[in-house]
Amino acid sequence: MTPLAEKILAGDARSLARAATAIENRSPAAESLLKELFSRTGHAGIVGITGAPGAGKSTLTDRLVHELRRQGQSVGVLAVDPSSPYSGGAVLGDRIRMLSHHADSGVFIRSMATRGHLGGLAAATTDMALLLDAAGKDFVLIETVGVGQDEIEIAKLADASVVVLVPGMGDDVQAIKAGILEIADIFVINKADQPGADRLEREILTMQGLSTRPDGWVPPIVWTVATEGQGTGETLAAIRSFLARAGAKNRVVSNWALRLREMLREHLIEQFANIDFQAAAEQVAARRCDPYTIVDGWIRQIRN
Amino acid sequence: MTPLAEKILAGDARSLARAATAIENRSPAAESLLKELFSRTGHAGIVGITGAPGAGKSTLTDRLVHELRRQGQSVGVLAVDPSSPYSGGAVLGDRIRMLSHHADSGVFIRSMATRGHLGGLAAATTDMALLLDAAGKDFVLIETVGVGQDEIEIAKLADASVVVLVPGMGDDVQAIKAGILEIADIFVINKADQPGADRLEREILTMQGLSTRPDGWVPPIVWTVATEGQGTGETLAAIRSFLARAGAKNRVVSNWALRLREMLREHLIEQFANIDFQAAAEQVAARRCDPYTIVDGWIRQIRN
Repeated sequence: MTPLAEKILAGDARSLARAATAIENRSPAAESLLKELFSRTGHAGIVGITGAPGAGKSTLTDRLVHELRRQGQSVGVLAVDPSSPYSGGAVLGDRIRMLSHHADSGVFIRSMATRGHLGGLAAATTDMALLLDAAGKDFVLIETVGVGQDEIEIAKLADASVVVLVPGMGDDVQAIKAGILEIADIFVINKADQPGADRLEREILTMQGLSTRPDGWVPPIVWTVATEGQGTGETLAAIRSFLARAGAKNRVVSNWALRLREMLREHLIEQFANIDFQAAAEQVAARRCDPYTIVDGWIRQIRN
Repeated sequence: MTPLAEKILAGDARSLARAATAIENRSPAAESLLKELFSRTGHAGIVGITGAPGAGKSTLTDRLVHELRRQGQSVGVLAVDPSSPYSGGAVLGDRIRMLSHHADSGVFIRSMATRGHLGGLAAATTDMALLLDAAGKDFVLIETVGVGQDEIEIAKLADASVVVLVPGMGDDVQAIKAGILEIADIFVINKADQPGADRLEREILTMQGLSTRPDGWVPPIVWTVATEGQGTGETLAAIRSFLARAGAKNRVVSNWALRLREMLREHLIEQFANIDFQAAAEQVAARRCDPYTIVDGWIRQIRN
């Protein structure tokens, strides 16, 4: 085992940060490190926290971190923003949150954003969660900024997915459209002291009445006021129940099937990074070559 | 040149139908046929017609067919439904329309739907348009049923994309969300005799004021009442202007770049059709093998 891998298994924060940067850069060194560490993973609960902007995800995440620390658990937080090209450091929200966990070596917080490689963010997030898992974190909270397709992809890769809604924002309808309801293992109605929480709960219940999940789990609905710390314990209890349920192993396996597909896709895209599609398109548009022959050539190319 | 290719170039309807079925089935025979025919393509105007269900796309398409026939042009119509698993024949709407063009050999109508292969519909639609192009059709109208991501992908592959909106349905807002506005080369406000057409036009103009297209084209807004045949000539004129504009060649080239990517993706997915992701995921979840080694193995596999 390499010294870096050993230090990470021992929970060394500086080594962890170094490895995290390698993962963000999708460097080959990161992959060999993760190969080394992989057999030591599988212990952390990976929890996705998704919801519309303004739903209070960051505050809820922060409260969950405090609650987990109070219970003696170590925590990693990944703040994922597919819409932002910025990466590799602390954004404003993180800095504020880091202050409150500053001196606490049991908490590791990292921002992740796209660096221009297509679809790589979901793979990088999964790798980062594995790294924190190997480093001995009991929980990894993956907080996404929005409810777009990328966020849903990322939330799907978690062991448990928490969807945060708020009353009176029309979130309910938006959530259905974005396909976010399908990925919710636990619903949180945050800002539940505001008017409309009842109505929102009824709407969720109505939708749950329309279809049953294949795994038989009925996602519980937890009311929170994250700014006041209300409902944090209940949210955590719901997460633990979901992770401990019968059939949890099936979900882990089906998540791995998804992740393997995603990894394969990313690797394939890399193989074709140097194809000049524009030049080929000009050949085709001018009828100098047919597109089928060109694509056959590319396929043959990666075979050699 | 094979006899089938010769018959298609001569516009034989029976051969065309046979080739269309081969394309739908994604058979290797279809690919060799298209390789043969490709140099004889590039003359038809490929026009996408997209919009929310109920916007009147079928009626407008039918009117455009009549108008084109009146002008002595031959036409192919592809009715594409990504949400439907049915394929390979005439659905109800087509049967009705076919009746009106029944005895007219200048019109070829075909329904297309998914057959379970991922992402293959866009490629199949492109191939079908090329086939009709080779068969001498002057125009190919590609009508999609909805405004989902798949429909947008398909509309993007056309030489000109018509987006059909109707007043008072909140289409405007929905259209923005679905990203359909970005692909509109021509806006049609259908059912323009209903209240709200003014308001809809103002909303489109407002959005157009917010950003300029890289190609400098300002999509015209045509008012139609398709059931009465009003505005059909204007719609066709707008399509012709777009196809004849300076810079039309750039769009054709960039479309080919998109199509080549899509074709490459489809071919790659075929290479991996026999991978058992579930079995691999079970190995990984049990920590019997790490995912990186598994994916490396798959990549090596297609190289041999």
